[in-house]
Amino acid sequence: MPKNEQDPRHTESTQMQRRINQPLSGFQDIWGQRMIQRERIMGTVIESFRLFGFQPQVLPSLHLSESLEKGSGMEQKMIYHFMDHGGRHVALRFDHTVPLRDFIERHYSELTLPYRRYEVGNVWRADRPAKGRYREFAQMDADIVGDSSVQADIETVLLVDNIMQKIGVDATARINSREILNGLVDVNGLSDEEGANLLRVIDKLDKAGSQRVVKELQELGFSATVIGNIERYLSIEGTNDEIFDQLDNHIGSSDKGKQGLNRLAKVFSAIKDSGYESNHFRLDPSIARGLDYYTGLVVETSFNPDPSYGSICSGGRYDHFIRRPQGEFMPAIGVSIGVDRLLAAMESKNLLPDAKTTTQVAIVNFGDEMLTQYLKLANTLRRAGIPTEINLSGVRLNRQMGEISKRGIPYSILLGSDEVSKGVVKIKNMKTFEEEEIPVDQLTEFLKQRDE
Amino acid sequence: MPKNEQDPRHTESTQMQRRINQPLSGFQDIWGQRMIQRERIMGTVIESFRLFGFQPQVLPSLHLSESLEKGSGMEQKMIYHFMDHGGRHVALRFDHTVPLRDFIERHYSELTLPYRRYEVGNVWRADRPAKGRYREFAQMDADIVGDSSVQADIETVLLVDNIMQKIGVDATARINSREILNGLVDVNGLSDEEGANLLRVIDKLDKAGSQRVVKELQELGFSATVIGNIERYLSIEGTNDEIFDQLDNHIGSSDKGKQGLNRLAKVFSAIKDSGYESNHFRLDPSIARGLDYYTGLVVETSFNPDPSYGSICSGGRYDHFIRRPQGEFMPAIGVSIGVDRLLAAMESKNLLPDAKTTTQVAIVNFGDEMLTQYLKLANTLRRAGIPTEINLSGVRLNRQMGEISKRGIPYSILLGSDEVSKGVVKIKNMKTFEEEEIPVDQLTEFLKQRDE
Repeated sequence: MPKNEQDPRHTESTQMQRRINQPLSGFQDIWGQRMIQRERIMGTVIESFRLFGFQPQVLPSLHLSESLEKGSGMEQKMIYHFMDHGGRHVALRFDHTVPLRDFIERHYSELTLPYRRYEVGNVWRADRPAKGRYREFAQMDADIVGDSSVQADIETVLLVDNIMQKIGVDATARINSREILNGLVDVNGLSDEEGANLLRVIDKLDKAGSQRVVKELQELGFSATVIGNIERYLSIEGTNDEIFDQLDNHIGSSDKGKQGLNRLAKVFSAIKDSGYESNHFRLDPSIARGLDYYTGLVVETSFNPDPSYGSICSGGRYDHFIRRPQGEFMPAIGVSIGVDRLLAAMESKNLLPDAKTTTQVAIVNFGDEMLTQYLKLANTLRRAGIPTEINLSGVRLNRQMGEISKRGIPYSILLGSDEVSKGVVKIKNMKTFEEEEIPVDQLTEFLKQRDE
Repeated sequence: MPKNEQDPRHTESTQMQRRINQPLSGFQDIWGQRMIQRERIMGTVIESFRLFGFQPQVLPSLHLSESLEKGSGMEQKMIYHFMDHGGRHVALRFDHTVPLRDFIERHYSELTLPYRRYEVGNVWRADRPAKGRYREFAQMDADIVGDSSVQADIETVLLVDNIMQKIGVDATARINSREILNGLVDVNGLSDEEGANLLRVIDKLDKAGSQRVVKELQELGFSATVIGNIERYLSIEGTNDEIFDQLDNHIGSSDKGKQGLNRLAKVFSAIKDSGYESNHFRLDPSIARGLDYYTGLVVETSFNPDPSYGSICSGGRYDHFIRRPQGEFMPAIGVSIGVDRLLAAMESKNLLPDAKTTTQVAIVNFGDEMLTQYLKLANTLRRAGIPTEINLSGVRLNRQMGEISKRGIPYSILLGSDEVSKGVVKIKNMKTFEEEEIPVDQLTEFLKQRDE
């Protein structure tokens, strides 16, 4: 047990201390069950990334501000930026896409294209904290750079589906194309600026509702005819095939729109023909994505048990963002998962399995004179891959059992001098309280069989 | 293949562009083989942490400066700090120990003690970049809080050894105790301030050499007798038992020193009696550790193939750093691994295994009309846990094979319409160039057997 010591400096300003001691607003301590669940989800996502052939990379968190801000479309006030010790204006990354762009340019000659990478790491945004929205949060991104094919579009939406299925989340990939939206702009005779405004307003549909969308379009000066067209466009419903037909009626007269429809039709038919579950994928004309840089397929993923969490996995094709060192654009497509939002959503619906600890066994401690035996046993178990704790010495047996139970460790081992001389251990299931005496040399096998 | 497009804005300032596009000094792009090797090492370390019963946690990267600087002993100029959007002085963490202290205080009532945690994440220091030293680097820490027992000391050094063995690094855990060093201070009749200076100078021994140490001690005004004593202390050599005997002669007359020797002797005898390899652990009186907060056992780990990399895993007991909310100290012990330094060290000695890719199979692409077949096959393989890529369509066969080989993917699959109608695939080993025709339904089994 800890030594106690009183520091007079400490008592004088407990309140001040308390203020200092809280995490900054929008930042979080992640530990205990929530952390174990988070690690599992992240591990599953990484597994999916790898199954689809993506390779890991880690880029810096800190960059020259100038470089991060260039062409990103991120509002400056959302970026954590400051002057470093060398007098450089630097900023913390707010996503993994802008750093990828710069990475590609500087390593272009070393890459075998297409370059398929994944990156897992924190990003920072000086945003207003809200439900599932943090100022520091982990993003998991997968991107394919240097591949403009429909095949890459297909693989990207299949990746999203693979992840959701492996995590066990009821989710729908809502898919649209910027080309289809450009078709809408086209057939309504809108200017580029009007088009950009239109996309921004449509992007708010999920959160703001259709009345609000109409109101904003009116305020922006769109004509009643155009607003009527857009309302009809946004109210298209039905099966994917029916939506394709209706979209064709709406925007088929635009070359851009037609091109987008044809390309997206290939995506949907390939998914269907290859035996994937078609009802996981929905053609949704209302998906626009906020960021300016998307050029083709866009995808958002609804958490069906509570869609109010917003998209838990989003992305799309951005063919005019990354450049070769010579300056020409390189096509790219990618998706990003906001782990902390996904976790918050799953938590709110009790979808996260119990996971109090990763430890499988606790060795009960009968006193210091047994320590050598405990260390030997722990060594054997750990070498066999079984996470093992040795309890503290000098604590009453009842209290030890209570603590093992509280930690959620599934098994405890009792090993006293009697057991040592008989070459056995007592093992206790902490849920059923069943106790068995088994030979030491069968213990590893026993535990491995019970580890699911 | 990508669409090309020329942007006139781009050509005007290629040089400017180039400057912006480099990572900041001390920051790194980690990708390709190095990244895969890094992930494996990190995975192995996490496995060791878990085997020893440590549980994961993630704390914020950004904190109030005031909170991070308090009692840490870190020079302010080493800390990345700035004013955030709310006008708060904030700073990026420079280690995982200071945030742990604050975490314990705020969650004290929720914890079951001892609290064994591990944390993996980046830390930032505005340090001068050098061999294996970065401004942003990953640290992997394991700590036990609320346990003052020798058992925790033993488990901590065994953890260090377990990690080194699992990674396959020839390393020696060099162990000492602050209490022994306090004994040295004691028997030489030094003041607290002189003692602190002495420890700081001793800490430089590895890097600066003994002549430099003597010179610094002279400059600090230590007497010839004291310097003579210290030189003899630092030159103690032999087996661990011999070193214990000599230390006893030197400092055994000091109560503090004696206490430290007795406690450390328990650590070494427990390791030996429990059958661990004693030669992985060396009692080293010269280990002092720079930070002020250590109070007991201290450990550094030499990378034996090239000790000039400095310690690759360090830590110790710090019983006067973390507090209960009421203000009393809580005992703690922990170690930290600087992954990026370890990686640099292993790389310099070619100790990292080849690991070009995590992908196991590439499906050669004979054209868009086969896409459905490829997607079906990829789905089957991925569901069986086999990382699978589908090559781009429209690329000549030779070039496809060359790229698969360049990426280091071990197998390629050839599936044309002939194979589809026969229900087989051709699978080619990309190292031996052996090609086999096997039934589709045996492919998964075939690949799983060959995945080691």
